[in-house]
Amino acid sequence: MKEVKKALVVFSGGQDSTTCLFWAKQQFDEVEAISFDYGQKHQLELQVAEAIAVKANVPFHVYKLDLLGQITSNALTNADMEVEEDKPADRPPNTLVEGRNMLFLTYAAVYAKSKGIHHLVTGVGQADYSGYPDCRDEFIRSLNQTLNLSMDYPYEIHTPLMWKNKMQIWQLADELGVFDLVRNETLTCYNGIVGDGCGHCPACKLRRNGLGHYLKDRKLGNG
Amino acid sequence: MKEVKKALVVFSGGQDSTTCLFWAKQQFDEVEAISFDYGQKHQLELQVAEAIAVKANVPFHVYKLDLLGQITSNALTNADMEVEEDKPADRPPNTLVEGRNMLFLTYAAVYAKSKGIHHLVTGVGQADYSGYPDCRDEFIRSLNQTLNLSMDYPYEIHTPLMWKNKMQIWQLADELGVFDLVRNETLTCYNGIVGDGCGHCPACKLRRNGLGHYLKDRKLGNG
Repeated sequence: MKEVKKALVVFSGGQDSTTCLFWAKQQFDEVEAISFDYGQKHQLELQVAEAIAVKANVPFHVYKLDLLGQITSNALTNADMEVEEDKPADRPPNTLVEGRNMLFLTYAAVYAKSKGIHHLVTGVGQADYSGYPDCRDEFIRSLNQTLNLSMDYPYEIHTPLMWKNKMQIWQLADELGVFDLVRNETLTCYNGIVGDGCGHCPACKLRRNGLGHYLKDRKLGNG
Repeated sequence: MKEVKKALVVFSGGQDSTTCLFWAKQQFDEVEAISFDYGQKHQLELQVAEAIAVKANVPFHVYKLDLLGQITSNALTNADMEVEEDKPADRPPNTLVEGRNMLFLTYAAVYAKSKGIHHLVTGVGQADYSGYPDCRDEFIRSLNQTLNLSMDYPYEIHTPLMWKNKMQIWQLADELGVFDLVRNETLTCYNGIVGDGCGHCPACKLRRNGLGHYLKDRKLGNG
């Protein structure tokens, strides 16, 4: 009997993790999605994530992670802090939530082990480097090893977007047949606007720039 | 000006972390203690921890970590599950809380960075190996590296008890001048009895055995 390959996707309902969700559906026999409510200002994120998971026909789990918002100070959970429009030169942006990816993946790993799942999928990447240290390949590799030691369990963390820029992520969504879904139904914008977003926050700028390049490329027949 | 060396101790009010707290007070200029309420049956643990921190004159922080109890099944958070009296031969004991030390140390690290603290202290050890994978030196070393990468910050995790058996941990408490405090005021017992404990849970057996050896050794003048 062939082993059933099961994966758990760390899922936020944004462009990147949605693309990863459909990538995982193509790669694995069974896929589940896990989201975290860490006190992000845009609670809409979780509704968007759930709607996409339902459409993808994937079991969706959301867990409350209040503590992360309590012990960090950042523009995604602190209502008094505005998202910076431009990336600071000398430090990470104020949208950085310290330890976020490490905590998300650790909780995901605990959940995965309880369900006999070995494969974890995350949409982090360092091609369009955001200044977030916990999006780097070096961190993910180190975390993978630490998780395996922590729970004496052979996890495999997959990062299909690690070396893709935003244009290439649009291309992947297109290849997976979910370009329109990703474009119209995901939430990437720091100002909480689904689809093409507000257009001026750093997340929108990056997403739109990549989309523009991809559409131009596709028009030229290179896609 | 000499740099002020600050440490954060992951603290539960048990024998091991209490010994570490006083060890840290001897080693560092400023010490804080952090505890987690993860739904453990014995909420007394947190009161005991606070009382010891007050006595040690150390700032004490307790954070709620409900999620850990929700996504794991173990005898420390599940009221329907009894603590096993003997260590199973073929698997870790049912008191194992998957991912616990990894999550505690990750949250501690997030907190520490926000306060400019580089040194983290934990009472884990592998001399009297409990069957908990996240007490091993290999795990702690890997975690240290992962945390540094995760937050781009130079943490140093200290494990003063890593290679000490229970007898040697009693000896260290004695050398630090807190033998009586550790013996009478800490809570190690899985059945929630402060001081010498119930005597028959695995934690008590280990603690009493070490104490017996240490007292005998001290009487013989080897201490």
